[in-house]
Amino acid sequence: MPIRGDPDPLYIGRTLDTPSGDLKDALRRVTAERFDFIAIPLAAPGGQGRGAEMQPSVDSDLVLDSSVWHTSVIGAASESLVPDTAQNPAEAAARCAALETELRWAGHLALRAVLLPPPAAASGGLSYARAVSEFLRAGVFPEASAEDGVAPPGPALRVPAGKGGWAEWNRFRTICGHHQRLWAALEFTEGGSADLTERDVDRWAGEPVRFAIVPAAAFVANKQGFPVLPKLYKALLLRLFRHQVQVILSAPQGGVCQESADSATGEGSSTDVLGPRLQYVARLFQSLPELNSVERFSQSHLDCLQAPLQPLQDNLESETYELFETDPVKYAQYEEAVLAFLRERLSAGRAPPFAVMVLGAGRGPLVAAALRAAARAETPVSVWAVEKNPNAVHTLRHRRRKEAAWSCVEVVAGDMRSWQAPRKADVIISELLGSFGDNELSPECLDGAQRFLAEDGVCIPQNYTSSLQPISAAALWADARGRNGGVEASGESSLDMGYVVQLHRAFYPTSGPKDCFTFKHPNWALESNDRYGEFSFEAETDALVHGFAGYFDCELYGSARISIHPSTASEGMFSWFPMFFPLQTPVFLRRGDAIRLHMWRLHDEKKAWYEWALSEPMATPIQNPGGKSYPIGLF
Amino acid sequence: MPIRGDPDPLYIGRTLDTPSGDLKDALRRVTAERFDFIAIPLAAPGGQGRGAEMQPSVDSDLVLDSSVWHTSVIGAASESLVPDTAQNPAEAAARCAALETELRWAGHLALRAVLLPPPAAASGGLSYARAVSEFLRAGVFPEASAEDGVAPPGPALRVPAGKGGWAEWNRFRTICGHHQRLWAALEFTEGGSADLTERDVDRWAGEPVRFAIVPAAAFVANKQGFPVLPKLYKALLLRLFRHQVQVILSAPQGGVCQESADSATGEGSSTDVLGPRLQYVARLFQSLPELNSVERFSQSHLDCLQAPLQPLQDNLESETYELFETDPVKYAQYEEAVLAFLRERLSAGRAPPFAVMVLGAGRGPLVAAALRAAARAETPVSVWAVEKNPNAVHTLRHRRRKEAAWSCVEVVAGDMRSWQAPRKADVIISELLGSFGDNELSPECLDGAQRFLAEDGVCIPQNYTSSLQPISAAALWADARGRNGGVEASGESSLDMGYVVQLHRAFYPTSGPKDCFTFKHPNWALESNDRYGEFSFEAETDALVHGFAGYFDCELYGSARISIHPSTASEGMFSWFPMFFPLQTPVFLRRGDAIRLHMWRLHDEKKAWYEWALSEPMATPIQNPGGKSYPIGLF
Repeated sequence: MPIRGDPDPLYIGRTLDTPSGDLKDALRRVTAERFDFIAIPLAAPGGQGRGAEMQPSVDSDLVLDSSVWHTSVIGAASESLVPDTAQNPAEAAARCAALETELRWAGHLALRAVLLPPPAAASGGLSYARAVSEFLRAGVFPEASAEDGVAPPGPALRVPAGKGGWAEWNRFRTICGHHQRLWAALEFTEGGSADLTERDVDRWAGEPVRFAIVPAAAFVANKQGFPVLPKLYKALLLRLFRHQVQVILSAPQGGVCQESADSATGEGSSTDVLGPRLQYVARLFQSLPELNSVERFSQSHLDCLQAPLQPLQDNLESETYELFETDPVKYAQYEEAVLAFLRERLSAGRAPPFAVMVLGAGRGPLVAAALRAAARAETPVSVWAVEKNPNAVHTLRHRRRKEAAWSCVEVVAGDMRSWQAPRKADVIISELLGSFGDNELSPECLDGAQRFLAEDGVCIPQNYTSSLQPISAAALWADARGRNGGVEASGESSLDMGYVVQLHRAFYPTSGPKDCFTFKHPNWALESNDRYGEFSFEAETDALVHGFAGYFDCELYGSARISIHPSTASEGMFSWFPMFFPLQTPVFLRRGDAIRLHMWRLHDEKKAWYEWALSEPMATPIQNPGGKSYPIGLF
Repeated sequence: MPIRGDPDPLYIGRTLDTPSGDLKDALRRVTAERFDFIAIPLAAPGGQGRGAEMQPSVDSDLVLDSSVWHTSVIGAASESLVPDTAQNPAEAAARCAALETELRWAGHLALRAVLLPPPAAASGGLSYARAVSEFLRAGVFPEASAEDGVAPPGPALRVPAGKGGWAEWNRFRTICGHHQRLWAALEFTEGGSADLTERDVDRWAGEPVRFAIVPAAAFVANKQGFPVLPKLYKALLLRLFRHQVQVILSAPQGGVCQESADSATGEGSSTDVLGPRLQYVARLFQSLPELNSVERFSQSHLDCLQAPLQPLQDNLESETYELFETDPVKYAQYEEAVLAFLRERLSAGRAPPFAVMVLGAGRGPLVAAALRAAARAETPVSVWAVEKNPNAVHTLRHRRRKEAAWSCVEVVAGDMRSWQAPRKADVIISELLGSFGDNELSPECLDGAQRFLAEDGVCIPQNYTSSLQPISAAALWADARGRNGGVEASGESSLDMGYVVQLHRAFYPTSGPKDCFTFKHPNWALESNDRYGEFSFEAETDALVHGFAGYFDCELYGSARISIHPSTASEGMFSWFPMFFPLQTPVFLRRGDAIRLHMWRLHDEKKAWYEWALSEPMATPIQNPGGKSYPIGLF
């Protein structure tokens, strides 16, 4: 039974080094000790070999039912089969063949997962990575069937959590072409947390880590004599718990799955050792704070790439409106902004009623916020609610008929850029911002509407600024790349898009975001909305950068703001996830290296778009040239 | 009239800074002075502007006939329009628009070529490169029609031939996505050759350089007082002459195409200056040595990518046999090898006749070489000519019937790997090598044939070794990339191929090739023909590496060898061009950086193939995984 958690449970397994006995019985004992699965060697000690020459660690597949193999057993491939340390090519080839045999055996059993031995980093060779890349390509690891969903499919490469481990992992997965099904299994060691820094912990949080392999010796005794994990190992586990990591406790006598035949210690003694450690990990997991409401909302969206909304070009659906209307922060901030505006006017002696124009009124949340503000300011207002989506206009008309406060509202069906307003507005209220601020074409819409803003009128929002920072997010990048389908022939690329995504499995290898593009309203001079900027960041640790995370910060009016910029984010607001601009090729940075991004906002008669390229550490081809892959339609 | 050359003529033009007068008349004078074309500014001095606001340097397109514009006039876009030095985004946008206007004007006139102003390197901006990238993408530069062929299409970017010029060029073309239609126009300067090294000259030879712009002041006076070019400028021109560079001499008063209105000097005086310089360049061009026969043969194949032959899988055509049979070196070397073998056996007292088996006899050139050798050794031989291509077997039978010397020849139709030989061979002769040695599966074929080699028998060739070196070859790489067509969806990539190509516009940024894979025959132990190697090279200058050039060196017998390895190449042999293995993404190296290649030769039941990847300067995904894009069929 996994440890219950919020939102995900934690699965904890343990190694079983000599499974050749009665596996069913051993599994029963281990389950009684509250472990969810066991990890066993695939081959018997010294039993490595090709095809039928391989001697499995168990008698045959008959020792367990298929469903038990699948839910309760993880197989570890033999460390002695890493081809890079072979003495000659023939031996390397033999090892590859034996390795493939073990992996196909794991596939035959449909195991819960398979662990790959650590790369022999010192050898410098690439043949092991090449072989695994080929296994991934050739289907040696069977895809999990859709209905079981016990675990995400794919093998997990054992690498040290500490010193040098990330570099090994990064090289290996790069050689494997950033394959989406390759995972990391982090090995903790005795005293190994001394090699770790908080930066390392953060960096692993950006990687697809599926297992943490924790030997008994990695624990230390606390004052009461109970086994606990050193600080940074604890921090690492806590981070990984949020990423559905599974923990494998390994018995005192050694590594994950010893190949030597001399592991004489029975399971009894190792249980005495592992029991309190299991308790510790379970309690650590249960110490995670509960999700707050925003986290709960985001939970189902973590790392899900979405094409940004294009409300100007497409009409939103009722469901979308409904979702965003429930944001507890956004409309409260708008209400404060309108209130500040009205009070300012009133205290300046201006006579009501004030002409309030809500542009892009949707189903009316901004109208309602304005009316609440007017009620609090105790001043009459005349409200025009302008909306181009005919389906939403029905809602506005409905509310106008049914809600008393709406008697001062006139509903207008049409595009703000062409509407002939009956008078000038004292205030224009809109909510046209995307995750990257201007990416839903707020600047173009408001420039087209300011014709009917009074000379001293104001816009809510008054201004907004986008920002960017480099991000390391292997899984996201691979996901974005995989969306290419057949489009490459037409010159489009799914890596030339911006995506809206709740970033979760991500790492930020530089200091925080830098401001990108700012827009102010009204823009009386109709200054161009094209922009260009250069942004340089310095890597604080070795990292692979997959793209840039984008945010916005927006001044509504007075002290009312909305923001998703990490350092100023509006607490509790869930209407926007960050933006992700991928790079065509991930860029490796050494600590101290600069990465320099050049970003453009451009337009023609039909669309606006972004383009981006690097000039450091080296130049890269322009992405999204001419808005080919990611145009933002003006109509 | 261009200067006649072998194989290509040289076109020389000159600048004309104030073309506003009678252009037809000016062109007549210039032609009389033996210039082939003129280069003029596209806009009048101070006439830069957008659309119809631009004031052309000439009254209109009516001042010359279309065909004259097309053959005789090059247009230079205004230097003041580089957007990177603009004070603000609006000015940058205005410059881009004006630049596009000039380029579209050049397109309207269908000029011979267009020169782009040099990038403002110091600015660090990328907006100019981005704009040109967009112009290339959007068709601002019209494609040359197929029939005229006066000049290859596309704009040429002015960059200094000397210090910093290559770095500017490299950055610009990378931002432009390595576009195939972007060329370089190298600017010579007064005293500028002091900045050049011989390495720089070599490096430019790898780039698509279309023009050399040589101002009068770049010349120096020799002892006789005649204008000559400094040593390295001269060396650079001599290299570029082989790449169809065109020379633009520029008048003494300044740059390529001045934009100021004060160029008062008439053409008369500048002709006095340019005349002797034209003479010098023409004489320099005519001093090029004549092509030798191999060069003449290669001439039509320069930089033409070809898929490697697969004679095992495909049957060669008569034309292909005929071509290769004319090689003046290869069969002479085989004859020497057989002769050495026969004499060795005879002097060891062995009794004739010797059993000579020619495997893959084709239309018989090796049979003929063996018979010539036997005649010279004055010993009888029995020859078996084994050939699997039925079309070539007809030729062999025909020669057996018609040529007296062939009476000792038995023609066998079949695959050497399955042929039941009537006796053991004293010598097995084959010519199964590809440009990279083993890439036409010589090892597999001979391993399959050695069954019928006598215990003390020998193979000709006895052994062969492939070799590799990093290569910078922008045009080749772009060509290879462009062959992708619609295949990417299937996971194949035209950059995961090896190509046979007569490398011409290429630069080798490291020390020479390193040996890669060696095969020896007979291979009595039937050791695996799979191979793996790692090869590290150090960059001797900053360079962009596009892939690796491959060669072979082969020991036939005794002192008889054939080789295309640069340091041991068989003089006059034309049967093999080098191999080119591209990288998926060109890799920028700074001087002193290491590039480390990992190369595999692999096989399964149906095919053999190569895979390759880098581990330095950074890891790259495996190329040609599983032989998906470039399999070499075993059947």
